[in-house]
Amino acid sequence: MAQTWSCSHADWTLLKKESSLMPHKFTLQDMDNKIRTAQYAVRGAVPARAGELQAKLKAGEKLPFDRLVFCNIGNPHAVGQKPITFYRQVAAAVTDPSLLTAGIYPEDVKKRATDYLAATNNAGSGAYTDSSGLLLVRQQVAEFLLRRDGFPSEPKDIYLTTGASEGVKRAISALIKDERCGMLIPRPQYPLYSAALTMVGGRIVYYDMFEEKGWKTTYEELNQAANDAFTDGTKLRAMTVINPGNPVGAVLDREDVVMLINFATEQKLVILADEVYQENVYREGKQFHSFKKVLRELQKDDPVAYKDTQLISFHSTSKGIIGECGQRGGYMEYVGFSDQVLTQFTKMAATSLSSNTLGQIFVGLMVNPPKPGDPSHELFEKETSAIFQGLTRRALRMTEALNKVPGISSQPIDGAMYAFPSVQLPKKAIEEAKQKEQEPDGLWCLQLLEKTGIVTVPGSGFGQKEGSFHFRTTILPPDELLEEVITKLTTFQEDFMKTYGGGGY
Amino acid sequence: MAQTWSCSHADWTLLKKESSLMPHKFTLQDMDNKIRTAQYAVRGAVPARAGELQAKLKAGEKLPFDRLVFCNIGNPHAVGQKPITFYRQVAAAVTDPSLLTAGIYPEDVKKRATDYLAATNNAGSGAYTDSSGLLLVRQQVAEFLLRRDGFPSEPKDIYLTTGASEGVKRAISALIKDERCGMLIPRPQYPLYSAALTMVGGRIVYYDMFEEKGWKTTYEELNQAANDAFTDGTKLRAMTVINPGNPVGAVLDREDVVMLINFATEQKLVILADEVYQENVYREGKQFHSFKKVLRELQKDDPVAYKDTQLISFHSTSKGIIGECGQRGGYMEYVGFSDQVLTQFTKMAATSLSSNTLGQIFVGLMVNPPKPGDPSHELFEKETSAIFQGLTRRALRMTEALNKVPGISSQPIDGAMYAFPSVQLPKKAIEEAKQKEQEPDGLWCLQLLEKTGIVTVPGSGFGQKEGSFHFRTTILPPDELLEEVITKLTTFQEDFMKTYGGGGY
Repeated sequence: MAQTWSCSHADWTLLKKESSLMPHKFTLQDMDNKIRTAQYAVRGAVPARAGELQAKLKAGEKLPFDRLVFCNIGNPHAVGQKPITFYRQVAAAVTDPSLLTAGIYPEDVKKRATDYLAATNNAGSGAYTDSSGLLLVRQQVAEFLLRRDGFPSEPKDIYLTTGASEGVKRAISALIKDERCGMLIPRPQYPLYSAALTMVGGRIVYYDMFEEKGWKTTYEELNQAANDAFTDGTKLRAMTVINPGNPVGAVLDREDVVMLINFATEQKLVILADEVYQENVYREGKQFHSFKKVLRELQKDDPVAYKDTQLISFHSTSKGIIGECGQRGGYMEYVGFSDQVLTQFTKMAATSLSSNTLGQIFVGLMVNPPKPGDPSHELFEKETSAIFQGLTRRALRMTEALNKVPGISSQPIDGAMYAFPSVQLPKKAIEEAKQKEQEPDGLWCLQLLEKTGIVTVPGSGFGQKEGSFHFRTTILPPDELLEEVITKLTTFQEDFMKTYGGGGY
Repeated sequence: MAQTWSCSHADWTLLKKESSLMPHKFTLQDMDNKIRTAQYAVRGAVPARAGELQAKLKAGEKLPFDRLVFCNIGNPHAVGQKPITFYRQVAAAVTDPSLLTAGIYPEDVKKRATDYLAATNNAGSGAYTDSSGLLLVRQQVAEFLLRRDGFPSEPKDIYLTTGASEGVKRAISALIKDERCGMLIPRPQYPLYSAALTMVGGRIVYYDMFEEKGWKTTYEELNQAANDAFTDGTKLRAMTVINPGNPVGAVLDREDVVMLINFATEQKLVILADEVYQENVYREGKQFHSFKKVLRELQKDDPVAYKDTQLISFHSTSKGIIGECGQRGGYMEYVGFSDQVLTQFTKMAATSLSSNTLGQIFVGLMVNPPKPGDPSHELFEKETSAIFQGLTRRALRMTEALNKVPGISSQPIDGAMYAFPSVQLPKKAIEEAKQKEQEPDGLWCLQLLEKTGIVTVPGSGFGQKEGSFHFRTTILPPDELLEEVITKLTTFQEDFMKTYGGGGY
């Protein structure tokens, strides 16, 4: 090198005092602690080990199983769910508009693709859109919300996002002003919430969901959590609710939603409502009640009491019946925020330019399916019914089967895509885990993986009551594979109990 | 509401001391200051006003123009650039695999689509991928980098991202550990860098690019900026370089790249190399020199001196010849980082699950175009040559035309997609802007918009030398429209000088 580092004008005494100022290679120690300490178990140690095992299988190595079954993540197409023909035909025609005149797609597909192309000023899927997303799609979302809830929505309050995750992260980073700000998060939770909050330096304040109450919380529990936070000097800003529940599969009744809205209103907490599983309600008599709808009903009855209630609701193309995770389509709706605040959210969106255009179009398709009489309607109904019935069947079957495995018990899977059963672990297993510096249910999930190829996530990755152990598994594998999962899980658990001693826990 | 807020256990004296602890509705004042103060002019006041004018036009209102010309953002398809047939056919076939047997696509399209489908285990574009992206695409990127640079790359160091922007944000948020950490950023810069740095609370340390030196910087300038930062107690962590330049359109010679690498190596700064315009080099004799290639060459000659040099390079499907902004495809390559650090970056990626699958496939297509002899090769060559020749022609034409407008002068547009001409503003205009609390070039850009419909971005949004004024315009409008832009711009500037007094600046 021609030049050498020169620092003649600088304060060398300062340098001596603080060696971190001395230029040095960027290592793990230099990385933002907030990032280093964030945890995200859904893609944590167990899935990482699964990746290694898959590589071994591909290399022809002999393992106790000949394929991995990924039950760790709600990724329906990855385990055989087929895409819905209508959606994909529209997306293909938007991608390659010459298909519009190829004589292969039905009229309603061509009409819909033409509408979306027009919404991009015929720039198509290759152009950035407005930061908040295509107006046509936001209008379609607003119309969907009106149909769903019976209350109007405005496109200006709707932002299209890269899946729901981007929206959640954006909201959390704006809501947390400093390191004293905190958010209520359910325990167990989907770990995006704790990870995003940790990464922006906010305080996590857990409220417990009670397994014995069908994985619901109580007003008393929320109040206690808020009071404890207040005593700690935590400025509570928001409350996350996940309905239907992830990982717990519970579906809130209307009275639960009312209680949560009342609590948030009293405490002036922004409600972050993760409603990405709103179409995934399986149990007879159960129904999805959106926070927006219930809030509007409460406001209608008592406009003064609820005038300041603020809500951000998230939805996604990844779940529901459509299951299009790979498209990364999503939206968020803001309720009760000033235009000044929305302007800031728009700026945040702008620094990412826009979410992918085709993902936006998938959002529009999801909320605006073919109507009776449309050429694609019959096939669409057939495909979506089969998917929904399959999910319902497997939710029931999984609940029933898990409860027959010794030492395992599961609450009913009323909604979403997961079971979150408790697993009783023998003392010896708990001690071995401690010695290995593992979570006990982490040890159990890793052994399950090594012996059966079934990939799950330890309950400790979602949070759970001290001394209890769980795992999360999806209900997504197709029927035959699900039976294989159940059989292998049962045998594994029997062997595990034999190895570590069945009693004594 | 049934319940009232209860805070009996909490410390009410604390509450009295600090009213921000008192529960209240979330307003602008509660929003993270780091977010509120971030600026992003590319989608700032001028484009926002353009949106309003477009709505007026659509509503049939009479304006001095009948359409807007969006020169504010590098969004090629939005101003008429056509997608490349081969890329879109593969993407359509991945989206709707029934097209593989419809007898309409060439064999190489079908082969490529089949390969990508196989890379998803035939889950297709609807499934999440690994957090770092499809292995096949990362392998194709690694092969491309080997061909481009003559030095090997490894898929494990390559992460697929939602455009380059997501990668940039991820890197910056990891590199900034606390509020004393800073980054060198060129002035003028693409404002993503300052916005992302502001949002994570890091310190912006500008180094100037000199217009009279063809928008390049010097070792002395960099050294001065680093020393000043050091004196301020700023821990410099990284240096951003944009090559070819945005907004300035300069292309670095190899000796420039060597100088920048030497400087970063001496100061132990991570180089963030924004190389998204690497295919956009127009001037005869100019050539893109990647930071990776030059670094590897320097390391070959002197392995000890450069052993700790660290680089993150960004690329995107949005620019180049492909111009597929809406797909949000991108990648980042890490050079010189430990596996521990990469594990953290993987976790960060995991909290976003994965970038959209089709966007990933567009990255693979971009780096692996059809080869001579492939059925799609001839059309591909024809389409890409036409796009490249068009960009080259318009870069030359824009440079020439801008330099003929009174009071405007532009450095040669050697690369990227923009001109960043200086505009001399009469004293009276500067004073009027001050009275209106506008930036003077902001006032100029807004008047240009109101009178002509041409949407540009004020130089103040990118940073510029005190007392100088600029605007950024793309070179993307098709030839005929570009001539219209030039004519309107010339007339506008002549009128502007008449209104505000041509001399006296």
